[in-house]
Amino acid sequence: MRILVQKFGGTSVADIDRLKMVRGKVKAALDQGYKVVVVLSAKSGKTNKLLDLSTRWAAEPDLAEVDSLLSTGEQASIALFSMLLKDSGIKARSMLGWQIPIITNDEFGRARILSIDASRIHKELEAHDVLVVAGFQGSTEDGRITTLGRGGSDTSAVALAAALDSCECEIYTDVDGVYTTDPNLCSTARKLDRVTYEEMLEMASMGAKVLQIRSVEFAKKYNVPVHVRSTFSDDPGTLVAQEDAMMEAVLVSGIAYDKDQARVTVCGVPDRPGVSAALFAPLSENGIMVDMIIQTASREGVTDMTFTVSRKDLEKAIQLMKEIVARIGGTGVEHDPYVAKVSVIGVGMRNHTGVATKAFAALQQENINIQMISTSEIKISCLIDEKYTELAVRTLHDAFELHKPDHA
Amino acid sequence: MRILVQKFGGTSVADIDRLKMVRGKVKAALDQGYKVVVVLSAKSGKTNKLLDLSTRWAAEPDLAEVDSLLSTGEQASIALFSMLLKDSGIKARSMLGWQIPIITNDEFGRARILSIDASRIHKELEAHDVLVVAGFQGSTEDGRITTLGRGGSDTSAVALAAALDSCECEIYTDVDGVYTTDPNLCSTARKLDRVTYEEMLEMASMGAKVLQIRSVEFAKKYNVPVHVRSTFSDDPGTLVAQEDAMMEAVLVSGIAYDKDQARVTVCGVPDRPGVSAALFAPLSENGIMVDMIIQTASREGVTDMTFTVSRKDLEKAIQLMKEIVARIGGTGVEHDPYVAKVSVIGVGMRNHTGVATKAFAALQQENINIQMISTSEIKISCLIDEKYTELAVRTLHDAFELHKPDHA
Repeated sequence: MRILVQKFGGTSVADIDRLKMVRGKVKAALDQGYKVVVVLSAKSGKTNKLLDLSTRWAAEPDLAEVDSLLSTGEQASIALFSMLLKDSGIKARSMLGWQIPIITNDEFGRARILSIDASRIHKELEAHDVLVVAGFQGSTEDGRITTLGRGGSDTSAVALAAALDSCECEIYTDVDGVYTTDPNLCSTARKLDRVTYEEMLEMASMGAKVLQIRSVEFAKKYNVPVHVRSTFSDDPGTLVAQEDAMMEAVLVSGIAYDKDQARVTVCGVPDRPGVSAALFAPLSENGIMVDMIIQTASREGVTDMTFTVSRKDLEKAIQLMKEIVARIGGTGVEHDPYVAKVSVIGVGMRNHTGVATKAFAALQQENINIQMISTSEIKISCLIDEKYTELAVRTLHDAFELHKPDHA
Repeated sequence: MRILVQKFGGTSVADIDRLKMVRGKVKAALDQGYKVVVVLSAKSGKTNKLLDLSTRWAAEPDLAEVDSLLSTGEQASIALFSMLLKDSGIKARSMLGWQIPIITNDEFGRARILSIDASRIHKELEAHDVLVVAGFQGSTEDGRITTLGRGGSDTSAVALAAALDSCECEIYTDVDGVYTTDPNLCSTARKLDRVTYEEMLEMASMGAKVLQIRSVEFAKKYNVPVHVRSTFSDDPGTLVAQEDAMMEAVLVSGIAYDKDQARVTVCGVPDRPGVSAALFAPLSENGIMVDMIIQTASREGVTDMTFTVSRKDLEKAIQLMKEIVARIGGTGVEHDPYVAKVSVIGVGMRNHTGVATKAFAALQQENINIQMISTSEIKISCLIDEKYTELAVRTLHDAFELHKPDHA
């Protein structure tokens, strides 16, 4: 039995005309001899609408009840789509998370998948040609409905593909693949045929909304090739997969950017053991994620600590830092909400030097000042003044000649 | 553990203000020392909206998928109400049909309850003070969601009360009880303090929409006292229960009417064995319910057969009868869509004579012609010209002095 997992997002299930296009994709897979596991999201906006509803009903809505409420969005999608398939003579049925079951832990609202009963799916696929599975949802061991958090349907699809073993996974969306950078910013942006899990993770964490980060982590862990495609075209899309020999030749795959950055600098704090913990513990206790961090060299026993946070957290971060400075000493707290992060991403840079130098030189050429730098094995990120974001993206895209299919 | 089952219908869960009134009813029961099982419907109109949606998606929507879709209405109600309860400090949780489970057969859209796991409910009631259970839904043995048909939430409530043993069952609605007749037709209509299951069944079958027929049958079978009350008042309502000594004194409990009647007469058919079957078999094969039937005395080997059907079925019934007459002989098919049935209902008439005579005389006094008569142990029904319906109801209500609390 050859099984294909196809996942369709909220815009693809928004109305009956779009779901007829989805049916076309499913039929094409059936014609190729596959049994198909279709994973659907709730229609666009439905989950937010239900979340809004729950906050109108209770100051702190019970998370288990919220999950039971939210899961109705996908439940409606899969019931309606199964009707549509059956109506055109396709042997199909819907399956909810608890019916398979997809067992998760009990962290309601952001549950993690623990196990999937693949034997049940195989059994149902003997009686049906298509199973229409609710994305985003699972069930605890004792039968309470859970949801997997934002974009959880991608994770559902990849987890099903992993559980069904050596199966392909197609993620259909409203874009036709992964690009070298945001085509809205850079007209020469080019669709990538392949990208590694690691590169996809870096791009996703920078706000490239093609795939949810956790689904890519899942795909990487279980080595599930994920095919990102458009519901609305027959374009082959982008394959997200393991690094292979061909890909190693590619130095840089893409340029990403993130405008949801704000900078905080705590000035003149005493440079002694434990000071970092004193600064960052209150942030994590308040659920504030810190992205880039720089500590300037100590001078006369004091140092400046600079970090970036999401803009929504800036005010709270400033307040917390002022409290710390009042307690442990320091000359003040500065901040800048108008910064952005641009990143050069590519697995190829593991084995090559000079990528950073080339990036810095290109930005300097345009008089773009680099405020902070952070690097990983496959990424170089620069914090810059927000107003240069578009220019920086285009400059780096040109510098690494990403418009050329054979860039290296 | 004293357990009270409280059921609230679609108008009671329509918005947050109404559900706060529902919460008031639940709190009152908690204050009396009960653990409470709350059964909720989907909010008014939701089930119809979802049904309409499914027929837009498929010419013949798959019934199992329709049930999974419809069940989301109650799922939303119970999640939201549980949030509301928890928000005011009440230990509560929602439970879906499959979570208990409420096991039904697999007649999707009109499933019948086979069993309810009461031990699970008792266990949950040790950890919680209130369980908020989805009405109208259950699950097959192999875990597919089913619904119980129109008004199924009443049945859910009564079945839960029966399963939890010797428990009371309150059905909250937007009327404050069961009346001697429709107060819109008859200003002297009086709310009954008690009514028997049998009387309630006759009234419900005549379109008194206070309780769904199947729920009354269920209550009768398991002897569950059902208390019909209003969500929007503190009025004691009407108790639907077994006949007792006090009730036997009551001759007539109420006057019901049904305008959804149409008369068909098949004239001059040969009066020989098998002719009734020939006439009625095609009707039942086409799903047409026949209510009253009269066969006139045979004359010269031919007879007239008169029966009533629901108005929506009249055209089809006439067509079928014309086909029969063409095949077995007969002089024609007459019909009258403008008829109504008025009924006198009371368990007391089992042990008393003269009720029918009194009813006929009262109608005759007003020159209302009786076209057909049918009787049961506790009911006398007369088919009359529709335009006399209101007059007939008031006349019979007066004749049996139903405005008096101590009528006998």
